[in-house]
Amino acid sequence: MTQLRSSAKPSVVIGAGGHVLPPPATVVPMATLDPRTAAQLAFLVEADKLKSIVRANPLVDGSRRENSAEHSWHIALMALVLAERSDEPVDGGRAVCLCLIHDLVEIDAGDTPPWDEAGRATKAEREAAAADRLFALLPADQAATFRGWWDEFEAAETPEAKLAHAVDRLAALMVNHASGGELWRRHGRTEAMARARNGKLADWVPGLLPLATALLDDASAQGWFADPD
Amino acid sequence: MTQLRSSAKPSVVIGAGGHVLPPPATVVPMATLDPRTAAQLAFLVEADKLKSIVRANPLVDGSRRENSAEHSWHIALMALVLAERSDEPVDGGRAVCLCLIHDLVEIDAGDTPPWDEAGRATKAEREAAAADRLFALLPADQAATFRGWWDEFEAAETPEAKLAHAVDRLAALMVNHASGGELWRRHGRTEAMARARNGKLADWVPGLLPLATALLDDASAQGWFADPD
Repeated sequence: MTQLRSSAKPSVVIGAGGHVLPPPATVVPMATLDPRTAAQLAFLVEADKLKSIVRANPLVDGSRRENSAEHSWHIALMALVLAERSDEPVDGGRAVCLCLIHDLVEIDAGDTPPWDEAGRATKAEREAAAADRLFALLPADQAATFRGWWDEFEAAETPEAKLAHAVDRLAALMVNHASGGELWRRHGRTEAMARARNGKLADWVPGLLPLATALLDDASAQGWFADPD
Repeated sequence: MTQLRSSAKPSVVIGAGGHVLPPPATVVPMATLDPRTAAQLAFLVEADKLKSIVRANPLVDGSRRENSAEHSWHIALMALVLAERSDEPVDGGRAVCLCLIHDLVEIDAGDTPPWDEAGRATKAEREAAAADRLFALLPADQAATFRGWWDEFEAAETPEAKLAHAVDRLAALMVNHASGGELWRRHGRTEAMARARNGKLADWVPGLLPLATALLDDASAQGWFADPD
């Protein structure tokens, strides 16, 4: 049977962002599938790798760090629950699409946490290259749709993209707070850093600031932030 | 600060489905939040537990079994890519919502694989009780919306619910095929069992049968199914 490797990457490489790329290329059967179905299958099998991209943030129970696939699910759920806080009308369905695909580029580019200054310098370039490769696995029309969603998310200008950015930022605060702030202490994140980072919510969905402030105030009262040097 | 435990469950219990329930209740700060926001936060923090519900199916790279949160993300993505195979008009946004929430009940009820006959006898009852508890964490209007989505998924009658069921079923075939069928051999799943299980696609989205058949034919050719007794 003719087979196509859905990725030509070597099995383990340390990427520019310092992360280890996922394991070997996945082989999907092609000969009995029409080209459109084969392309869709190749994309969906490749997307499975997002389950192996580990983020800095923990599960709420502290048992392990979360991965970017389950994180994407979580913020899509947050977008549905919190869309009402937007001060503009939001197409909830499209906001959810942006949440679902916003981190796919991390399959190649890895997660780049805010304290990775070297990684952040090359993040935009690495993620754009990843978007070029990954969405092109799809049939051309769907590739354009998915790439359009990703570009829309990155631009953070539409109500849906601003909501997706807001819940992405708020999710990190929520799980770090709910898990007792262990990550903040471990990475030397001070209260000022956390407040500055969540201040961005004012640009995206100001209606989510009271929730962020309540979580930050409680974390401060509990002494969960790192001390300033 | 007044605090509310988002779950009154003990830390570790073997559930009726034979699974271990997630770790202790999560504490969320309530005093500084209005009741609506507090309810939304309680639900979203509780939802994090779906990341700890381990399914039978593996990641494509075989490195571990997938959890129900990342699986829900994956089938939402599948619904977006494969909605065009439905023979009825599909509201993609609502189909994605059904995918996102369809497994939340597993936080209480656990995953019940097809070979767990004892678990399957009580599955409907356990999952309905879980839906009663989990969606009620939300404000009443959102609880009704989310419960409506879950009831719609369970009924499998609307085009969106049928698509969600189809990609849920197809996802298991896709990841088991892409990972080399190890699960089929380990659990004694024969070709006849797999074909019968995926024959259900004809009831939901017949347009996905060719893809399922190609994967089943290839798995059969590779000798990945268990031998019949």
